[in-house]
Amino acid sequence: MLSNESFRKQAHQVVDWIADYLENIQQYPVKPTMTPGALRAQLPAEAPVDGEDMDKIWEDYLNLIVPGITHWQHPGFMALFPSNASYPGILGELAVAGLGINAMMWDTSPSATELEQTVMEWLRKASGLPEGFTGVIHDTASMSTLTAIITARERISSFAVNNGGYHGYENLVMYCTAQTHYSIEKGAKAAGIGAAHVRKIPTDALYAMNPTALEQQINADIAAGLQPFMVVATLGTTSTLAFDPLESIAEICVANHLWLHVDAAYAGSGFFLPQYRHYLKGITKADSYVFNAHKWLFTNFDCSCYFVKDTDLLINTFSANPDYLKRTEADVAQFKDWGIPLGRRFRALKLWFVLRNFGIAGIQQKLQAHIDLSVHFRNTIQHDAQWELMAPHVMNMLCIRYHPSSINDIQTLNELNMSLLKKINSDGRFYLSGTMVEGNYLIRVVIGQTNVDQAHVDALISLMQASVADITK
Amino acid sequence: MLSNESFRKQAHQVVDWIADYLENIQQYPVKPTMTPGALRAQLPAEAPVDGEDMDKIWEDYLNLIVPGITHWQHPGFMALFPSNASYPGILGELAVAGLGINAMMWDTSPSATELEQTVMEWLRKASGLPEGFTGVIHDTASMSTLTAIITARERISSFAVNNGGYHGYENLVMYCTAQTHYSIEKGAKAAGIGAAHVRKIPTDALYAMNPTALEQQINADIAAGLQPFMVVATLGTTSTLAFDPLESIAEICVANHLWLHVDAAYAGSGFFLPQYRHYLKGITKADSYVFNAHKWLFTNFDCSCYFVKDTDLLINTFSANPDYLKRTEADVAQFKDWGIPLGRRFRALKLWFVLRNFGIAGIQQKLQAHIDLSVHFRNTIQHDAQWELMAPHVMNMLCIRYHPSSINDIQTLNELNMSLLKKINSDGRFYLSGTMVEGNYLIRVVIGQTNVDQAHVDALISLMQASVADITK
Repeated sequence: MLSNESFRKQAHQVVDWIADYLENIQQYPVKPTMTPGALRAQLPAEAPVDGEDMDKIWEDYLNLIVPGITHWQHPGFMALFPSNASYPGILGELAVAGLGINAMMWDTSPSATELEQTVMEWLRKASGLPEGFTGVIHDTASMSTLTAIITARERISSFAVNNGGYHGYENLVMYCTAQTHYSIEKGAKAAGIGAAHVRKIPTDALYAMNPTALEQQINADIAAGLQPFMVVATLGTTSTLAFDPLESIAEICVANHLWLHVDAAYAGSGFFLPQYRHYLKGITKADSYVFNAHKWLFTNFDCSCYFVKDTDLLINTFSANPDYLKRTEADVAQFKDWGIPLGRRFRALKLWFVLRNFGIAGIQQKLQAHIDLSVHFRNTIQHDAQWELMAPHVMNMLCIRYHPSSINDIQTLNELNMSLLKKINSDGRFYLSGTMVEGNYLIRVVIGQTNVDQAHVDALISLMQASVADITK
Repeated sequence: MLSNESFRKQAHQVVDWIADYLENIQQYPVKPTMTPGALRAQLPAEAPVDGEDMDKIWEDYLNLIVPGITHWQHPGFMALFPSNASYPGILGELAVAGLGINAMMWDTSPSATELEQTVMEWLRKASGLPEGFTGVIHDTASMSTLTAIITARERISSFAVNNGGYHGYENLVMYCTAQTHYSIEKGAKAAGIGAAHVRKIPTDALYAMNPTALEQQINADIAAGLQPFMVVATLGTTSTLAFDPLESIAEICVANHLWLHVDAAYAGSGFFLPQYRHYLKGITKADSYVFNAHKWLFTNFDCSCYFVKDTDLLINTFSANPDYLKRTEADVAQFKDWGIPLGRRFRALKLWFVLRNFGIAGIQQKLQAHIDLSVHFRNTIQHDAQWELMAPHVMNMLCIRYHPSSINDIQTLNELNMSLLKKINSDGRFYLSGTMVEGNYLIRVVIGQTNVDQAHVDALISLMQASVADITK
């Protein structure tokens, strides 16, 4: 086992490696070319009996692990959504790893609880959320959303489900759209609502929820003897960054006493920029809201920020005080009662480091720079009539398709774009991902990695043009 | 924002601070004396507009945050359960923070998925689990257990609950004891089983489940038209480290087609020592098993190791493949489908570092040393007839009570021990926690922090004696 002295030496080496890695990350292909099973085949079948030297382990890390890493911090990572780490974020994770504490209760590190309360309040203000929302950090939006679903279920059942199961509540129904993130349906299954009770409300031409259709479906469900209890509105869907019309949806929720959960997992960071806050109109009527600081807010994964109005209801849904965890202090937050996991990492520290080191203005500048790059990309691409913009361009995401006028068959078009995506990604400098929306295969370009600049965007455009030439020749 | 160069400089400083901190941790009181709200009062109400210098932020970390930290890595931390960090564990967290990847799918970092498969297989073998179990890392045992409950629910309902909700399954019943960790009931509530359907089977004099009583309750429930579906057996309860009789319970589960989940969250690490593996007898009949490497296995929190027999069932319970996450590779594990969260940290790396740097023998030596210290503690304490051992001494945990022959009233006795615990903790060198078991207040002494040695244990004994003298004078 490492001595303190050896640890110090080794940790300095790791720091230097990280600094070098992040400085030279463009030397790696964004996505590795490893074949399935290749790493497993190189590793022994059992742990060693005797301890091994850390130098040797680190060498194996470099030779075996790094070649199979997908480089999320590469400026050419434009797939899925970015998950931006940052220098202050890494420092926060490092300090937390050294402390080795558990932030489950106030007692188990008062600073961790109180710093979390403070930074969540900072975030609430900086991201345009009104007073009345209180925040807590979860790991992922999947968990934040599950927390919302369960709390909403307990509100409508007056805690009957928690206490006695679903007797009399087998027909709870919730609402979203086909564009809503799949974790909502997954959460509904986990919580026992059932996938069949998750209504996918039709969307408009912009892939946003049609509120009239929502209202009709709610009325139809009530008429059929079902129990509507919750609506999930998305601000910035995963496939195309569509924004559900929050204000109209909120009014329907109020009229029908439905829990309104707002999923802004990605776009929530964008609300640091005031020009996008019109999408938040109606938010005062929402019950819960989530956005992930680990996506586009330069805070290392994991850091999902969950905001809720009725904290008593939340706590009454999840709290329990077994004999071995008796509170010694009254009137302090016990975050173990704000969600499912008992143990909790000290995530607030990295967020505090990031918010202070960047500053609100620094974050706004970075976000705006990404948005400006996406405008540059769109403007350039649109000079070529064969590229179609397939969804409204909001913030920093573009959904496009290559569509030569000679091709009218959708299947051929989809296959062409799949091949094109594969061709672009095979170059190694960029990683884009695709999605299927209402039968159309789209290429998603999310220009949001911290260090992406215009040279990258121009290189991507050239690569796309060359790839088109290559696969259509 | 930090430049690469400034980050490098700053990170080296953080490394030195961590090395100093861990070397000198005994200079801190284990538990801070901070009063509720004291940190919040010192922090600004809003994030700064302009970025701040990292040196200044770090200074605030030292002056404001550290004084409110509970020092889990202090050798005198003997409360709750230890959550041991380690030098290789910290290096792993540091490297992962630098990579900034997401281990949700094979594609999003093939190394992360394959290393997780490999180290979980290493752990299975090293901790005495039979072939047939496959592992995945979750954050906490709370989540591992919830995963088990939901999977068991879908097995008995043939996915009916996932698909259509609880129609016809409102009377699912599960079994544990009053000593089972509270997260099991919390999970049952979250999953929609309901607290009233969680049967607390009576325990024997050693606080372990009475299998005859289990069988009787199952039969009674069946006769009453309810649907038993799951038993949670605990190997090493939180209050007293009691071990439910796994083999007898397993036979009852097989006979009644019940899912058997085994919660060895703490004691699972102890099974690295073969002399304790007799507690695992019957494990081949279990369906799922959890232990936390972040407790007594020197792996930084979070790292909960969940093992399951039927991986197809697990995946069918949790998988979904939305259009924006289409798999590009067949026949590889997609860990997003092995539990609730989509996003996943790359936790396998630290586990790999720890298992290789310690080696199995190194881990065994550490565990045995803790156990030997607990024997020394017990032997010393038992010389004084006024100290009672309140539960069987297994592994490294002792449940004791100060009981002068002059006191026979239980309430007086409980209050005396609460005062005594408070007195001991007020010294600052040790942090013990208490629990209430069947009306008796016990003081728990878990001798398991990595660097605890005999001098600490002797100092604790002296402090306990002095504290007794002080509060009874």
